[in-house]
Amino acid sequence: MSCKCSQQCDIDVMSDPLVLSADPSHPANLIPELCTVFYNNGWVTGTGGGISIRNAEGDKVYIAPSGVQKERMVPENMFVMDYASEEYLRVPQITKKPSACTPLFMSAFKMRGAGACIHTHSQSAVMCTLLFGDEFRISNIEQIKALPKITEAGNLGFFDELVIPIIENTAHEEDLADSLQEAIRNYPGATAVLVRRHGIYVWGETVWKAKVYNEAIDYLLELAVKMRQAGIPTTCGVGEEKKYLKY
Amino acid sequence: MSCKCSQQCDIDVMSDPLVLSADPSHPANLIPELCTVFYNNGWVTGTGGGISIRNAEGDKVYIAPSGVQKERMVPENMFVMDYASEEYLRVPQITKKPSACTPLFMSAFKMRGAGACIHTHSQSAVMCTLLFGDEFRISNIEQIKALPKITEAGNLGFFDELVIPIIENTAHEEDLADSLQEAIRNYPGATAVLVRRHGIYVWGETVWKAKVYNEAIDYLLELAVKMRQAGIPTTCGVGEEKKYLKY
Amino acid sequence: MSCKCSQQCDIDVMSDPLVLSADPSHPANLIPELCTVFYNNGWVTGTGGGISIRNAEGDKVYIAPSGVQKERMVPENMFVMDYASEEYLRVPQITKKPSACTPLFMSAFKMRGAGACIHTHSQSAVMCTLLFGDEFRISNIEQIKALPKITEAGNLGFFDELVIPIIENTAHEEDLADSLQEAIRNYPGATAVLVRRHGIYVWGETVWKAKVYNEAIDYLLELAVKMRQAGIPTTCGVGEEKKYLKY
Amino acid sequence: MSCKCSQQCDIDVMSDPLVLSADPSHPANLIPELCTVFYNNGWVTGTGGGISIRNAEGDKVYIAPSGVQKERMVPENMFVMDYASEEYLRVPQITKKPSACTPLFMSAFKMRGAGACIHTHSQSAVMCTLLFGDEFRISNIEQIKALPKITEAGNLGFFDELVIPIIENTAHEEDLADSLQEAIRNYPGATAVLVRRHGIYVWGETVWKAKVYNEAIDYLLELAVKMRQAGIPTTCGVGEEKKYLKY
Repeated sequence: MSCKCSQQCDIDVMSDPLVLSADPSHPANLIPELCTVFYNNGWVTGTGGGISIRNAEGDKVYIAPSGVQKERMVPENMFVMDYASEEYLRVPQITKKPSACTPLFMSAFKMRGAGACIHTHSQSAVMCTLLFGDEFRISNIEQIKALPKITEAGNLGFFDELVIPIIENTAHEEDLADSLQEAIRNYPGATAVLVRRHGIYVWGETVWKAKVYNEAIDYLLELAVKMRQAGIPTTCGVGEEKKYLKY
Repeated sequence: MSCKCSQQCDIDVMSDPLVLSADPSHPANLIPELCTVFYNNGWVTGTGGGISIRNAEGDKVYIAPSGVQKERMVPENMFVMDYASEEYLRVPQITKKPSACTPLFMSAFKMRGAGACIHTHSQSAVMCTLLFGDEFRISNIEQIKALPKITEAGNLGFFDELVIPIIENTAHEEDLADSLQEAIRNYPGATAVLVRRHGIYVWGETVWKAKVYNEAIDYLLELAVKMRQAGIPTTCGVGEEKKYLKY
Repeated sequence: MSCKCSQQCDIDVMSDPLVLSADPSHPANLIPELCTVFYNNGWVTGTGGGISIRNAEGDKVYIAPSGVQKERMVPENMFVMDYASEEYLRVPQITKKPSACTPLFMSAFKMRGAGACIHTHSQSAVMCTLLFGDEFRISNIEQIKALPKITEAGNLGFFDELVIPIIENTAHEEDLADSLQEAIRNYPGATAVLVRRHGIYVWGETVWKAKVYNEAIDYLLELAVKMRQAGIPTTCGVGEEKKYLKY
Repeated sequence: MSCKCSQQCDIDVMSDPLVLSADPSHPANLIPELCTVFYNNGWVTGTGGGISIRNAEGDKVYIAPSGVQKERMVPENMFVMDYASEEYLRVPQITKKPSACTPLFMSAFKMRGAGACIHTHSQSAVMCTLLFGDEFRISNIEQIKALPKITEAGNLGFFDELVIPIIENTAHEEDLADSLQEAIRNYPGATAVLVRRHGIYVWGETVWKAKVYNEAIDYLLELAVKMRQAGIPTTCGVGEEKKYLKY
């Protein structure tokens, strides 16, 4: 069977049960589908960003290759890793080089039991790392309620403050692992880490939760840029919701 | 029959005449279709927002579940309520918890005879609640003519002022009902209510009117943000259309 | 045959050779197709805007109804007018009220021999009518070369100034006809007229030229808003292209 | 066979093996497909921009016609040129006039061995030519790593500075060839050239590389406009990543 992808890997691909499934919710099918959504959001243009999903059984990790067009992937392009041994069960034809994001995805899986981790180069994420210091903070916005408390059951409330740590970027993506892990340890309530001048990592219990968290956080990052531009602080005390009105 | 949705409700769904219809204008078909449009507008990302439609006979209310991905719903995900008794005729498998928006949707139905009510987290709506005090006001913009007078037949004119009340947000969405109802009473000409740092509720006689009003209002909210950013007031007297030109 | 449209006109529609054609370039097919494109551009949301196309023979005028959702029209929704007598050959079931834009479309047809005229509520158009006085002017931008000279053969050059007259809006759209016609007379080189706080009318020899002109003009209007926001004049003399650089 | 295109060339088109291929990666199929993507990006609206691709053998050059709607092209609309002799093997019915971009595309092919060259009127590109002097410079942004070093193997690093020369526009596009070639000579590490008040030319070893480079560069141009707007320099020294934070 000839590869269907448009990424110049014209090598024959054998039928591979690890990535070929008729089930649309199989990780190897979901990754290409969701990456097209993320591409249309402007989150993964120019081959930027990535995603990793664990299978339902949790024993395998599916990873999008880096350096390829995210909106033009096919299931055959996926890396598959054994969760326990961290050994590759499958390396795609399109690129032999595992994604530099892999240790970061694994940090979310191992430290938080995440089922999926999404990495984007969202411009709102990058702009917030230029507008905020070591933490992104926002409160008193309804959309915050889409995000989990993590340290206890349930979601954040309207008056709660969402705090996302911002770590410094490194020359090589894999070198981010230490500071990402440190941030995960220091912010037990965080479900995301921003990377200065780079983008964001968002994870969740399942792929759908990770996607919803990413959408809700990106909405808040975009709104925060607009609030700062209008001279409105992104946090305020209870009862101060009208304090900074611009009228 | 296995559920077609991608929201992790893998429970068997029996054929259900309340939500299964070949008619594309059936509320259970329209809600998923319109929510995809709203998602692409950025109005309901991250599970935010919602919509409720009454059937043509007016005796049933269809309500999108909250906390689910709005662009990935199927008819089987809908709640159905008896309009008169306000008792649930159907609770979907995807979530047992009725939408917290339900009392707000019902307020528009009961107090105004609305046929549909749309709730979005539109960023233009949220920004306007940060830029305006207790009312959003705009005049002398053609798009205003898409909106109804309500208190009498016909639509607003170009020189009329569109006024949308802004109410304060509450910790729990259902607690908004009192102030929403008060705003509906105090603004008999309004077809929408803004909620500070949260979003907007827009209703109409039919689902299509509600959609058109929502689009026209969101256009005006977006324009108002741009006008404020450029230092141009959003209202002006007749004959003052050129007063604030920036040339 | 039951009407396919989603605009609540559930009345039976008889097969009508004036609007039913298998040819995708028939005006009754093109108008719905292009209005969907314009809707996705944000030009005709909330039922705003419109379009009129003359048939290839030039003896008939097809007009989109006003007050209906522009992205959900079907050929059966079209008005058809006899070009010479200006009498309606066909009134659609969806609305009996001819579009208030009709006299404006006819002005472009009769005074300029246009084959199509597009009306949008583009936010960039409205913003430019708030930022410019009685004329929109831009020069030394490559995209200007997509626009025709009109008064002589060929297109504008890079160093030419594009001038679009801005007329004042009126309470009723049909009352714009006089000032639109005056603008057409006074600006023989214009292929468009801006209407303050309202939108824009753009016409061309054919529907495709009108569409291309509208896209090119809207690109320039959007760019002009950004230039003004950055403090850069939209016109400059030859050799002054670097005079206003912000570095 | 009648032409399928919607660009008013209703002349019969004979089956032509130069442009008719069942292979989706054939240049005559890829050009229309990619131009639709670029149109949706806002890069080639109003007939602006263009693209040229060499075939896999490298002996033929496929060129999109200028002055036509880029999102509505079909393979029959393509020019085909012999790479060695620069003579046209095929002139389409839609326009006899070769694209004025041809000498610019050929410069990238001949001087750099490029396999494809993309030209857009991206507003972010135009804005950057109004905000920067003779060079666009950006550093310390992750997305830079999608771009090649050219002068040696591998891609730029996070701390490297991306430099894109900006040349002055000319009245006629073909007159840009001299200064474009000079810029290519003077900037051996560049894979793109910005043209003041006009747009950008981006090339790559293959069409996919050219597309990825264009996306990555446009992301950086868009980000640069936002950074300037927020008062943040687009370059900084190593260790200065937090120097210009706006908090």
